Amino acid sequence: MITVADRSRSRARTGRRPGDSGTREAIRAAARAQFAEQGYDRTSLRSIALQAGVDPTLVSHFFGSKQQLFAEVMQLPFDPSAVLPRIVAGDPATIGTRLATFVVTVLQTPEGHARLTGLVRAAASEDAAAAVVRERVTREILAPLAAKLGSDRPELRGALAASQVVGMVMARHVVKVEPLASLPAEQVIALIGPTLQRYLTEPLP
Amino acid sequence: MITVADRSRSRARTGRRPGDSGTREAIRAAARAQFAEQGYDRTSLRSIALQAGVDPTLVSHFFGSKQQLFAEVMQLPFDPSAVLPRIVAGDPATIGTRLATFVVTVLQTPEGHARLTGLVRAAASEDAAAAVVRERVTREILAPLAAKLGSDRPELRGALAASQVVGMVMARHVVKVEPLASLPAEQVIALIGPTLQRYLTEPLP
Repeated sequence: MITVADRSRSRARTGRRPGDSGTREAIRAAARAQFAEQGYDRTSLRSIALQAGVDPTLVSHFFGSKQQLFAEVMQLPFDPSAVLPRIVAGDPATIGTRLATFVVTVLQTPEGHARLTGLVRAAASEDAAAAVVRERVTREILAPLAAKLGSDRPELRGALAASQVVGMVMARHVVKVEPLASLPAEQVIALIGPTLQRYLTEPLP
Repeated sequence: MITVADRSRSRARTGRRPGDSGTREAIRAAARAQFAEQGYDRTSLRSIALQAGVDPTLVSHFFGSKQQLFAEVMQLPFDPSAVLPRIVAGDPATIGTRLATFVVTVLQTPEGHARLTGLVRAAASEDAAAAVVRERVTREILAPLAAKLGSDRPELRGALAASQVVGMVMARHVVKVEPLASLPAEQVIALIGPTLQRYLTEPLP
């Protein structure tokens, strides 16, 4: 157990913070695991500290509130700055299929499935977590997507596409409604591709 | 505080259960309030018993597990057997608009908003709650809707429509992604109506 007082003494002696980065990483790892496994609601700074083997005061000392720590460790299962250009480039008439293929394929991998369902579950759990997800998804995915779309009402188009993607994650992977839950990936792509296409490029009412 | 032992003694004396229905209703009311306000995760049989002013053993005695109590008090914000015939009857070419209008209108009322977002949040919280929501929504909405649709692959069509409805609840009302969150109801209807129409009646790949 390492406390804030221990840290301060250690720093006073040596003039630097030996092990700080290791301690921070242990806290991050515990936070990632607990947010993913038990959700935002049932994870606390105390339970994260316990798993990381540090004093709870150290967690808030390093990371602030639970919401701030969640924002710190929340990870998308892909790098939007690498993925978005690939989806937006190419024939505009097939952007819906490219986006659907990307999302459905990520959800077929164990890590992508765990991270995306974890994000959706966290966003549904508490307003504090929803705010973090909204801010990150808007800043890292929807705003850059809108900037690249080059169409009318690009922010609305991105949000509409996001609503169908999130709904598919909920129906197929979280609530597991049949026959959607068991449908082969290529059929899901063929079914939601035209919806995403319409939202992203076709005339809106 | 009323315990199971008290109840048994009372029944032994009188041969009936005075106050049982009142006690059950107090437990149901506390369960409804807590599931709605703090979500499925953070609600326990103990916290429900505390609010209802009864012994926790009495809650499990009457209702079984937390999952069973959730199934007992989970309420849709409308009666599907009254609503579905109205949506399915009429011109098949406008069923998407009728469904979108119904859902968006229910979400504009405080009670409908609270119950639908509560359902989606509960479904996202734990597998036990997701199973209850899946079973009820399939039995009370998707199966009757499929039976009335009279088209090919009706169960898949219902599930696809559900995915867009749930996604809209998440994006607009739970995560509150702009500009969707502030969009007037009639615009939301015009935007998702064609998606629901395609899923429910148009040829699927």
